[in-house]
Amino acid sequence: MTDRFDAEISLLLTDLYQLTMLQAYFEHDMHDTAVFEFFVRTLPTNRHFLVAAGLEQVIGFLENLRFGAQELDWIAHYGAFRPDFVDFLGRLRFTGDVHAMPEGTVFFPDEPILRVTAPLPEAQLIESRIINLLHFQTMIASKAIRCVLAAPGKLLVDFGLRRAHGAEAGLLAARASYLAGFAGTATVLAAPRFGIPLFGTMAHSFIEAHEREVDAFERFAHSLPENVVLLIDTYDTEAAAAKVVQLATRLTAAGIAVKGIRLDSGDLGAHARKVRHILDDGGLQHTTIFASGNLDEHSLYRLLADGAPIDGFGVGTHMDTSSDSPFLDCAYKLQEYAGRSRRKRSEGKATWPGIKQVYRRLGSTGIMRGDVLGLEGQDIDGVALLQPVMRAGRCVLPSATLATAREHAASEIARLPPELRTSAGGARYPVTVSSSLHELARTLDARPV
Amino acid sequence: MTDRFDAEISLLLTDLYQLTMLQAYFEHDMHDTAVFEFFVRTLPTNRHFLVAAGLEQVIGFLENLRFGAQELDWIAHYGAFRPDFVDFLGRLRFTGDVHAMPEGTVFFPDEPILRVTAPLPEAQLIESRIINLLHFQTMIASKAIRCVLAAPGKLLVDFGLRRAHGAEAGLLAARASYLAGFAGTATVLAAPRFGIPLFGTMAHSFIEAHEREVDAFERFAHSLPENVVLLIDTYDTEAAAAKVVQLATRLTAAGIAVKGIRLDSGDLGAHARKVRHILDDGGLQHTTIFASGNLDEHSLYRLLADGAPIDGFGVGTHMDTSSDSPFLDCAYKLQEYAGRSRRKRSEGKATWPGIKQVYRRLGSTGIMRGDVLGLEGQDIDGVALLQPVMRAGRCVLPSATLATAREHAASEIARLPPELRTSAGGARYPVTVSSSLHELARTLDARPV
Repeated sequence: MTDRFDAEISLLLTDLYQLTMLQAYFEHDMHDTAVFEFFVRTLPTNRHFLVAAGLEQVIGFLENLRFGAQELDWIAHYGAFRPDFVDFLGRLRFTGDVHAMPEGTVFFPDEPILRVTAPLPEAQLIESRIINLLHFQTMIASKAIRCVLAAPGKLLVDFGLRRAHGAEAGLLAARASYLAGFAGTATVLAAPRFGIPLFGTMAHSFIEAHEREVDAFERFAHSLPENVVLLIDTYDTEAAAAKVVQLATRLTAAGIAVKGIRLDSGDLGAHARKVRHILDDGGLQHTTIFASGNLDEHSLYRLLADGAPIDGFGVGTHMDTSSDSPFLDCAYKLQEYAGRSRRKRSEGKATWPGIKQVYRRLGSTGIMRGDVLGLEGQDIDGVALLQPVMRAGRCVLPSATLATAREHAASEIARLPPELRTSAGGARYPVTVSSSLHELARTLDARPV
Repeated sequence: MTDRFDAEISLLLTDLYQLTMLQAYFEHDMHDTAVFEFFVRTLPTNRHFLVAAGLEQVIGFLENLRFGAQELDWIAHYGAFRPDFVDFLGRLRFTGDVHAMPEGTVFFPDEPILRVTAPLPEAQLIESRIINLLHFQTMIASKAIRCVLAAPGKLLVDFGLRRAHGAEAGLLAARASYLAGFAGTATVLAAPRFGIPLFGTMAHSFIEAHEREVDAFERFAHSLPENVVLLIDTYDTEAAAAKVVQLATRLTAAGIAVKGIRLDSGDLGAHARKVRHILDDGGLQHTTIFASGNLDEHSLYRLLADGAPIDGFGVGTHMDTSSDSPFLDCAYKLQEYAGRSRRKRSEGKATWPGIKQVYRRLGSTGIMRGDVLGLEGQDIDGVALLQPVMRAGRCVLPSATLATAREHAASEIARLPPELRTSAGGARYPVTVSSSLHELARTLDARPV
């Protein structure tokens, strides 16, 4: 296996029908300009809004789009594709324009967050991977931001790699959650790849590999004196907290501070209270309590509402799999081809046609007041959220960095109406459809097909 | 970015604590033999059993385990690791033994499906990625096999790439579902990587890019005459079926057969009946009906129980995300170190200690009768399911191919007791714990820590 068959970068990570459709387009000279838009059809239960994420990976994918020799060879020998079409694929690059909401932008159903304008074969081929990239990070950022809203001011760390769905999901969940306001991740690769801060403690196996729990604590402290966070729930949580207090005296003599302890099982709130008491009584008022284990935004909210003295949380499986809603009902749909608007009318899946724009009104204090889904170029009050990000196949953003996206997400949180900030359900943000867009849809529905 | 920072192959795709713990082991010469086991703690709702998958990827990971120069450089400059430890990492290879259930084996909670016996640092470092690999494919195979049981004899195809969680999830979901009995996938990369058969039709955008639906059908048929499967729900399903009948006459004259049609929206059963009638009346009795759109094992079962004339199904999002249970409560835990058994006692997360084996009794007709979770080497009736797969870091399996795993899964389905074959809940398969294992756990609990 060479890297050209690597899942993260191979152009063969696509659906077979993209290639068969491209061959039909090629044979019939269908190279006119197509416009596709990516949007989410409906909000999952327990989501008041979504957070756009994944654009940086989409741009990287499009800028580097080309079939490698090994891939072309495989296609040529598959049996369904003609030599002149394979030659065409060998020359194929992405030459189109892309408009998108900046990463970190809050958005709602039916609002496109990405628009691709390109020759039909280019705009078609990229569908599967564009959805794959935008869907996942948007879903994770939208879940992670609920944890950020539930635990303001707390240290939140992504712990989800092991149960994330494969390698890329583990890596990109670290990115999406950091974008949404997490402090960092335990996933090492996220540091060299994205510059995300790393956090980590120790596993139960480390404790169990020692005959005595306190030996494990002491060795770890001497090995990593700058970051002594001790896992204390392997056998008896409160007994271990008492051992930490005794150990701290010896460590202090060696110039080492116990920075924190971690709880990972049982009633986290009850243990945190008892452990806080033991630590405080032992003079370890500055030792923080970090909790993990099956956490999500609801448990964070409950623990903090109950006054649990917990300073930080490791959030893993539930966030990295968006466990209460592990997919978004999203699509990448043709809106216009060769200058004519297009509309799918399938039952329950009809789409708004045409080249669209999202206009957002903000109140005088900056709070979001309502969106209009309209056509690009309409004279509508508000900020136009879709901005140019690629022209003729090249990125035109001055700096599409993760840090910028994270700052943008934080400013978006500040603009949220209060009713969208709670984890409870039922709130509705006003999104209206412009009369011009309604009119266009009616016109298209009357057209014979 | 070079390929050494690629998510699918980088050893930095791990949790930070693996590296910090390794440094502590290194400093204290803790290189004795450790035994870790991977198991699932509990069955998700709606699962009677699980199907082991992902072993081939684990073996590949372990055989190729080494830090690259760029990774070592990053570790050396991170700030927490000492030069002699980085040198140690540079020399690190996996030299251990692995026992595992063959891929495709049916298993139950607390039963280890993988056991690693290796020097402690090696066995520890691999934890995050081993869980990441086994968890995902096992979860998907266990979901996919429910579709296979719900639709016996039907053509089942994985359609889930776009909403799978990232690149590797899309690729490995194709593998895990094929292992479980699917006929193939739409994900192209699964063919060169794993030899999985590909299936594909056309997207709505292909239809919409043409002024007239029938033009799209005709062009596609001429472009891909061997595999004419037409998507007929873009505008009006039954009207499109009538167009297919008319078109078929012209295509027959050109020597092209309409192999199938695809439905993707609305009441699939009702549309299938009407379309079957239209096709049959038009002489297209051999044109098959393929359905897709938001399907899972429950909808497959209902459609077929209602007698819907559907010949095949594309199953996507719900399978590739295991949407009703997007994670398994699984763990990779230390069982023994330096010849002494180990046990985590954390509340709600206590583990069975020691080096274990799963013994399965089969009835005279080959049906599974019950399992015993015991210690390796016990004299217990039944087949021992954990078999050697690696010795001293090298694979010892004669042929661990996907085809073998798929055949094994099919034979496992044939051995399932009838009550485990239904999609309804509540069935229980008998798994008992041997008295020796109970005794070992009691002994360890009495040991001071």
